[in-house]
Amino acid sequence: MTEMVESIKSKIRSIPDFPQEGVLFRDITTLLKDAEGWHTAIDAMQKTVEDLEFDTILGPESRGFIFGATLAYSLHKGFVPVRKPGKLPAKFISTSYALEYGEAELQIHEDALYAGQKVIIVDDLLATGGTAQAVIRMVESMGVEVAGVLFLIELKDLKGREVLQGYPVYSIVQY
Amino acid sequence: MTEMVESIKSKIRSIPDFPQEGVLFRDITTLLKDAEGWHTAIDAMQKTVEDLEFDTILGPESRGFIFGATLAYSLHKGFVPVRKPGKLPAKFISTSYALEYGEAELQIHEDALYAGQKVIIVDDLLATGGTAQAVIRMVESMGVEVAGVLFLIELKDLKGREVLQGYPVYSIVQY
Repeated sequence: MTEMVESIKSKIRSIPDFPQEGVLFRDITTLLKDAEGWHTAIDAMQKTVEDLEFDTILGPESRGFIFGATLAYSLHKGFVPVRKPGKLPAKFISTSYALEYGEAELQIHEDALYAGQKVIIVDDLLATGGTAQAVIRMVESMGVEVAGVLFLIELKDLKGREVLQGYPVYSIVQY
Repeated sequence: MTEMVESIKSKIRSIPDFPQEGVLFRDITTLLKDAEGWHTAIDAMQKTVEDLEFDTILGPESRGFIFGATLAYSLHKGFVPVRKPGKLPAKFISTSYALEYGEAELQIHEDALYAGQKVIIVDDLLATGGTAQAVIRMVESMGVEVAGVLFLIELKDLKGREVLQGYPVYSIVQY
């Protein structure tokens, strides 16, 4: 696993002052475009959660779609997209929350999940933890159980893990 | 393949009058949340393009991320996200185009692709073909060769296939 992690980390590019001054942005596009890198990233994520009990993966729009949908395929699970407003055609529930940069709202179809179901939430990046926390709050209001939260990257200084206390939190690459 | 296609089609939900009156929306969330359905959809897409020569898959934000990234993983290719404005941290090129409902702009990192490279474009839905056409125009300006365009769903009445004339166009489910 250490070798996989080093290989993944070596393919993530760091870009200073994006999206604003003083922020060092971890750019996953250099990992994704590398066939070996992309495959290794999903394999490492799969290894991390394959012993958890769950049947569906939730991924927040947009980068959570990349990781969540692919991991759902590789683990043979269902995928539920957590969407930005205006995208879902059927009855949905909604949650608003504070982001690292601004405010946001996420929605999920009411009939996408059922009470008692076990899910994991997958996203590219754990920063402040606000997005994952909002998704957890929303699905728990539906009676759904969150068996874990999985990120490719964790920015440790932002202490998102503390915000998600009480839930199993996993990340592959830490900065 | 016919059996796979029928199984996929049976899991796509149709919702009238979304996003506007008179439009029958094909909702893929019911397919995605079904582990078997999601796996079958990607397997059918994989079968359709596995003999094409290319090394990278492009997927437009957001639903193209779901299909493009997953197919890239399953075919062991690289994935390049084609993004909405404001998301890419490095130097990018940009294209504006008319959508079925309104206008849009898409961007791609300049160093994500190289001249002479062969790619396919993957998205959930072929409607008017405007998005795929815009992506083709953008990557051809970088010297990239488009080896094919693949959709899960094709809305035949909207004649998107005509807009993409000259390129191999594939779809799994047609309405």
